[in-house]
Amino acid sequence: MIEPKEALDIILNNVKSLPAKKVFLEKGLGHVLVNDIKAKIEVPLFDNSAMDGFAIHKQDLGTKNCLKVIGEVKAGQKTSKVASKGKAISIMTGAPVPKGAAAVIPIENVDEDKKKKTIDIKSAANDRDNIRNKGEDIKKGSVLIKKGTILKPIHIALAASVGVSEVKVFEKPKVSIVVTGNELKRPGTILKAGELYDSNSFLLKSLLLKNNFDVAYVAKTKDNLDKTIRTIRKAIEKADVVLTTGGISVGKYDFVSLALEKIGAKRFFNKVKQKPGKPLSFFTYQNKAIISLPGNPVAVATCFEIYAKPMLKKMSGTNDLAHKEIKAEAAQPLKRHKKRTNYIRVNLIKKNGSYVAKTTGFQGSGVLSSMLADGIAVLQKGNENLKQGELVKVIDLEGNYK
Amino acid sequence: MIEPKEALDIILNNVKSLPAKKVFLEKGLGHVLVNDIKAKIEVPLFDNSAMDGFAIHKQDLGTKNCLKVIGEVKAGQKTSKVASKGKAISIMTGAPVPKGAAAVIPIENVDEDKKKKTIDIKSAANDRDNIRNKGEDIKKGSVLIKKGTILKPIHIALAASVGVSEVKVFEKPKVSIVVTGNELKRPGTILKAGELYDSNSFLLKSLLLKNNFDVAYVAKTKDNLDKTIRTIRKAIEKADVVLTTGGISVGKYDFVSLALEKIGAKRFFNKVKQKPGKPLSFFTYQNKAIISLPGNPVAVATCFEIYAKPMLKKMSGTNDLAHKEIKAEAAQPLKRHKKRTNYIRVNLIKKNGSYVAKTTGFQGSGVLSSMLADGIAVLQKGNENLKQGELVKVIDLEGNYK
Repeated sequence: MIEPKEALDIILNNVKSLPAKKVFLEKGLGHVLVNDIKAKIEVPLFDNSAMDGFAIHKQDLGTKNCLKVIGEVKAGQKTSKVASKGKAISIMTGAPVPKGAAAVIPIENVDEDKKKKTIDIKSAANDRDNIRNKGEDIKKGSVLIKKGTILKPIHIALAASVGVSEVKVFEKPKVSIVVTGNELKRPGTILKAGELYDSNSFLLKSLLLKNNFDVAYVAKTKDNLDKTIRTIRKAIEKADVVLTTGGISVGKYDFVSLALEKIGAKRFFNKVKQKPGKPLSFFTYQNKAIISLPGNPVAVATCFEIYAKPMLKKMSGTNDLAHKEIKAEAAQPLKRHKKRTNYIRVNLIKKNGSYVAKTTGFQGSGVLSSMLADGIAVLQKGNENLKQGELVKVIDLEGNYK
Repeated sequence: MIEPKEALDIILNNVKSLPAKKVFLEKGLGHVLVNDIKAKIEVPLFDNSAMDGFAIHKQDLGTKNCLKVIGEVKAGQKTSKVASKGKAISIMTGAPVPKGAAAVIPIENVDEDKKKKTIDIKSAANDRDNIRNKGEDIKKGSVLIKKGTILKPIHIALAASVGVSEVKVFEKPKVSIVVTGNELKRPGTILKAGELYDSNSFLLKSLLLKNNFDVAYVAKTKDNLDKTIRTIRKAIEKADVVLTTGGISVGKYDFVSLALEKIGAKRFFNKVKQKPGKPLSFFTYQNKAIISLPGNPVAVATCFEIYAKPMLKKMSGTNDLAHKEIKAEAAQPLKRHKKRTNYIRVNLIKKNGSYVAKTTGFQGSGVLSSMLADGIAVLQKGNENLKQGELVKVIDLEGNYK
């Protein structure tokens, strides 16, 4: 039986980022960038107007002169007309600033006489007013987005603004889910004595989708060695990662470990000093990773957060794998299970800029509703018995659970 | 010209939640629940074992007796065997606890003699050890998930655990995007003088996808009235919401407002006292909502956060529309634009449990990279000129921009 930290290290050391691929820019959203994106052009590419108005000469700055309008320039065009003292050029937002112009005076700040083609300045302009300067946003050659960045909408827009139409990103892991147990029935059916509704496949599928991973295959199998082997084999074929639930304790009908052995998967560990989630196991097979989760849904959700998510992130190409942790005051005494790290589901209450952690009711390992939590308090060796008010480490679930 | 708060109120008062629909449970993820989900069964439905082990009688609690194993019960089965003093029943995780049993003793805590069918208890058990009690997770009839909840993975799993296979949720808005401007070219092409790459369609599409809204249609149109009318009409047909960019200032070639008027859309406002985003306009047409955003990408992102997102959330059925706001100390003096609310892009730095807001460099309205920000500081009437260290209201972008 190994410690949680060791288990996580083993998992992370035995997976690597998936291959890189080139995708259309817009398909890069949420993926990790392989190379720096450098600006091949500067942005804006030319001095342009920030407003609809009139481009005026520097000698008309600070004045309320009456100017002749000698031409017009629209966005997407350019003009050969030149602004000079007393001579302005009508200009639209985004249009290139004509030669000779020192500022753009907004249309609202002039009285225009369309027949005479003149404007009277009502409110004087200063040098460079309403001109967006060439290169003010992005310098040519500068690193616009660093490799390793998880591409967010603003990155996609920034890349577009310098003309990038394709990006090289890491592939994201495709995941198969295999839930095991004779007792599991599909929601919507009628239960017989001793049966339960399968919630784990729904839990894992939704957790994967919410975290933007691809679900390749979902299957349920009976506690039967041949069926388990067949189902897991199919799950492995279809994906980079397989998550199984149940069937990994020491019971006579726990066939998941046995099936993985028969398939030829390499087992790295089969027990972790933690509660919930003690029978957590990790295997690899060729380049695929298999995490075998216990059958109990609280352990499934907890182990997904603590082990599967960082692993899937690493396979997606990012190095930012750490859980977001905070310190919170225990709202009640917290007692650790004898020899195992305890994961206690808590709500976080703000108090004078710090947090108080309050357990989400009864922490029985079958109590799925206890996962309607803000965080998971971690009771490790060295903080066996916390008094009320003592500080505890909490993994912040960042609004993903309630 | 109206104040930002008034503009947001007008938008929110003129949209309502979309119709409800029944979907398969797993399709409900991210949707807003229409009715409470009540538990039709209790969970667990029966006392069951939390471990693989042996169900023992109360008179064998606290002892290290040698017991006869008189039967076995697997998950999904039940047994007619009854535990009694000296007589245990082999039990798998999840299996119903047999009659007569007071606790389950884990397999690790016994020495089993399979030939003799006996076990020697190594570590004594207490009453109810390793028994998950009937109803300990969920009471029958209790409200499991409240109406109005945005369904997260844990809610989907909870609903599954009580056998729910379909849920009634609000539809989510489908959104069309129309970007306008003769100067806009697709990334990947070569620019001519005066031209720019379109980044707004990429920005809006990614923002919508990141926020889990459906993008129904994306189009680019020239500054031409007929083409603008045709494109906007198509955009309206295909979606519940249309977001346009550009073409709404007072320039001669700004055809978006005119096109919407010709189509018969009702305009509610066409200017907001804010920077960036002054020419923001809002229209409705039949049951559709149209937000016309300025052409400049910083205004697009800012107005998306401040106006479009709450509107889309309301249409999705939730009442939780407020921006997440915090107070932060200004890292530098902040000066407000004369008569308008200023939105300043800032990074938030933690300092002794509070935050310091530091501007993201040059705040030119064309500077898209300034949106690589943690938040948007709001300089309103009454806090025109903030000194360094004074408190400013910041809309927390919650990691969605960097």
